[in-house]
Amino acid sequence: MHSFEELSQQFIQRFSIDHFPKDPSSLYEPNRYFLKLGGKRVRPVMCLMGNELFDEINNDAWHVATAIELFHNFTLIHDDIMDKAPLRRGMETVHKKFGESTALLAGDVMLVAAYDCLSKVSGKYLPSILNIFNQTAREVCEGQQLDMDFENSIEVKMDDYLHMISLKTSVLLAASLKMGAILGGTGERNQNLLYEFGRKLGLAFQVQDDYLDAFGDPQKFGKQVGGDIKSNKKTFLLIHVLETASQEQKNGLLQLMNRNDDGKVEEVISLFKQCKVDEWAAELKEKFIAEAFDHLEDVAVLSKRKEPLKQLALFLTQRQN
Amino acid sequence: MHSFEELSQQFIQRFSIDHFPKDPSSLYEPNRYFLKLGGKRVRPVMCLMGNELFDEINNDAWHVATAIELFHNFTLIHDDIMDKAPLRRGMETVHKKFGESTALLAGDVMLVAAYDCLSKVSGKYLPSILNIFNQTAREVCEGQQLDMDFENSIEVKMDDYLHMISLKTSVLLAASLKMGAILGGTGERNQNLLYEFGRKLGLAFQVQDDYLDAFGDPQKFGKQVGGDIKSNKKTFLLIHVLETASQEQKNGLLQLMNRNDDGKVEEVISLFKQCKVDEWAAELKEKFIAEAFDHLEDVAVLSKRKEPLKQLALFLTQRQN
Repeated sequence: MHSFEELSQQFIQRFSIDHFPKDPSSLYEPNRYFLKLGGKRVRPVMCLMGNELFDEINNDAWHVATAIELFHNFTLIHDDIMDKAPLRRGMETVHKKFGESTALLAGDVMLVAAYDCLSKVSGKYLPSILNIFNQTAREVCEGQQLDMDFENSIEVKMDDYLHMISLKTSVLLAASLKMGAILGGTGERNQNLLYEFGRKLGLAFQVQDDYLDAFGDPQKFGKQVGGDIKSNKKTFLLIHVLETASQEQKNGLLQLMNRNDDGKVEEVISLFKQCKVDEWAAELKEKFIAEAFDHLEDVAVLSKRKEPLKQLALFLTQRQN
Repeated sequence: MHSFEELSQQFIQRFSIDHFPKDPSSLYEPNRYFLKLGGKRVRPVMCLMGNELFDEINNDAWHVATAIELFHNFTLIHDDIMDKAPLRRGMETVHKKFGESTALLAGDVMLVAAYDCLSKVSGKYLPSILNIFNQTAREVCEGQQLDMDFENSIEVKMDDYLHMISLKTSVLLAASLKMGAILGGTGERNQNLLYEFGRKLGLAFQVQDDYLDAFGDPQKFGKQVGGDIKSNKKTFLLIHVLETASQEQKNGLLQLMNRNDDGKVEEVISLFKQCKVDEWAAELKEKFIAEAFDHLEDVAVLSKRKEPLKQLALFLTQRQN
């Protein structure tokens, strides 16, 4: 059994090969650039962990882990275009550095490269892996579309937000674990329990993400606090306050959302605290973590083997940046 | 054996099912809209023809044909974004009608849907089909990138243009035939001969495309004559004239390329005729067709069975629109 840190290091080393041909460099250099921006490679490690839960990590799991990371990077490149994001990990995004058309095409070919890794999976597992991968890929696209739709909605219901986050963020974590588990040779019951563990973990992860934007420690938080607030992004916090606050508080928040001045972030955070949305979010996160752990508990495998997944879960949901 | 018309009708009927879920309609409605714009569905029919050359058309071939058409439409949606094209088949393009972000995402999910069709191919053939499909998809992206690179190049060499067209246009025709042939159970020699037949046919097709832009009959040509000339698009014609004309003619052409007035198209065409590039293009097309037919001739199957492919080749390269 390996810890998250160990698997992350192993994956990063294996992933550092060149995934693309040399030419045309105008197409592949942007992808090489983007992959070098790095990352903790959480999703592929989840695939490896799902695999190691049942057996020693096999070659198929490495192929799928690589496919997952390439897929994730494809979504990031395209999301950055749609969000008009200038920076990722403090560096220029692909469309900013190489132009939108090239970023679009570089993303496309990154997705094809992901499928190329999948095609190396042994025949016995290939159809089921392809099925889950395709379904997940569709859902991630659906989640991104819903996220964009929400930008233009005045009010978003909590259930709809949960559905969107489940698609945009959770299903890839869930599917990564499940594909690893399939390749570990375990049965459907264990596969599905791990999927649900991953899905709930994704929701807890997003609650933490939304929480940190407003209540993160500026010393530890990598980004500027209040980015979501500035852009009126629908988050767990905003949606909960709009759904549960008094009419007066709600009106106050709606007025604040029309402002663009320097004081906006501070005043929204103060209103959030008044509504105790920080406490609510902490509880919601704990609820999702507890549900996730219940599913993990049910997985029919020696308890000791689950330790790395538990550590990962805590790492993802207790992080301060 | 079936003719192109028959297979095209059969494919269009089968393809008219809904390839996408209902929700979110903001994501899938654009794709439904785009697929309804229609088309002759040449590529999937080539897959079916490659299959029927050796056997009765089987289910796997239908799955791959569907995947090919979905893939082709994915490239069109994304190409239209990159080219900032307002119209396709006389109707608004996806990005024009639904916005760029949605068009980007709709294209992404169309590509995933293509892979979903591929995943239905029986296990025996799945790895080899995935391999060819992935390689082709990569090459089509490379071709589009080179095409964009050429827009910013002052002079493009004929060999580089041929390479770009081969990637952007020919390999998908070639791979469609080859995948059909693989699923028809034939050996590698026949597969590769059909691939080369398709590749040369694609080059002949593009020569005809470039030719029609300048020399097409306005009565029969669907688009406005001279679109490529107006935008100084590098075509077989332009590149050949720049490579072979006298210094005086070349200077004349370069001057014309700096103009934007109404007379530009007429004067360029007149210069093209002076350089006899129309005759040259007609010969080049015949050369590619002859090479294509040589490959087809070599395919070890009853000559009679090749008739539909010959008809298709003539249809694609003699068309006036």
